[in-house]
Amino acid sequence: MKSNSAIYKVFIATSLDGYIADINGCIGFLDIFPAPEGDDMGYNDFIDRVDAILMGRKSFETVLSFGIPWPYTKHVFVWSNTISDIPEELNSKVTFVKGNINEVIDHVHQLSFYNLYIDGGKTIQSFIQENLIDEMTITTVPVLLGEGISLFANSNGLKKFKCVANKIYPNGMVQNRFIRI
Amino acid sequence: MKSNSAIYKVFIATSLDGYIADINGCIGFLDIFPAPEGDDMGYNDFIDRVDAILMGRKSFETVLSFGIPWPYTKHVFVWSNTISDIPEELNSKVTFVKGNINEVIDHVHQLSFYNLYIDGGKTIQSFIQENLIDEMTITTVPVLLGEGISLFANSNGLKKFKCVANKIYPNGMVQNRFIRI
Repeated sequence: MKSNSAIYKVFIATSLDGYIADINGCIGFLDIFPAPEGDDMGYNDFIDRVDAILMGRKSFETVLSFGIPWPYTKHVFVWSNTISDIPEELNSKVTFVKGNINEVIDHVHQLSFYNLYIDGGKTIQSFIQENLIDEMTITTVPVLLGEGISLFANSNGLKKFKCVANKIYPNGMVQNRFIRI
Repeated sequence: MKSNSAIYKVFIATSLDGYIADINGCIGFLDIFPAPEGDDMGYNDFIDRVDAILMGRKSFETVLSFGIPWPYTKHVFVWSNTISDIPEELNSKVTFVKGNINEVIDHVHQLSFYNLYIDGGKTIQSFIQENLIDEMTITTVPVLLGEGISLFANSNGLKKFKCVANKIYPNGMVQNRFIRI
């Protein structure tokens, strides 16, 4: 269960029609607008404000598939009910957690992580369905894909937020930050 | 066919999950956040910048159902292949147009209207599918409905825009303006 002191945040990019990936699960549309030079669009500031990252198996495998050095400076929890083998070099950086959402949250909290970056489509959707997301920073890549994997699929009833910050980038992208009310 | 001097614009509110109406076609979610007092959120400025309005039958019937004085200061074209009876008091204010999208556009242009406010879900979608929308002002009501009628359903392939303006309102809503690139 969510502790009173826990905060769950999303930081994600979507297309203008709300997709986080195309119909094949690919995120190539993110590169249509090259990132503004020398500007991480608030990512490092955001990471500084969380204690750990909770992501799903698919996101974890996607990051591994990039073949880049491990990119996260905060501890990563991977929510998976099917895999549990951590690559040896990530032993101190990654923890697998399993079970339902409350079991996963309890596990993470027991290890004293409360301020979490919630990442990955299914993981975010699970948290939204339970109305557990406190803050969402959504960077809109202003393209219509026409089809794909929706960030807000099956969000399960009315949830209210409030826009508290926004910024247009020189490349035409726009970032809006919402907090739950 | 679109004339080179024609401009087609959208000015619409959606939920955070991209719906323009709930699953029953109702727009009650627009009232969750009362409009900021004394601020029309750019509507009149927008209307000043168009020559006429083109909307679908459903939007027209919805406006009539409000039982309020006719609210439009610009000529309204109603795209319908099924109805053509104009209420007498609207004879000089409304024109019915029918046919496919090119026939509708030709009809409107022949009457010397080129700078159009495109309104109504299906009408907007038809224009987006043909990549004919030049500008979209999207006011986000920051609620998740979970299901409904999507603004961008079936947008039919990649379309690129660029965010050129945005504004947060005191009530927590946010408005982003996109132009086609």
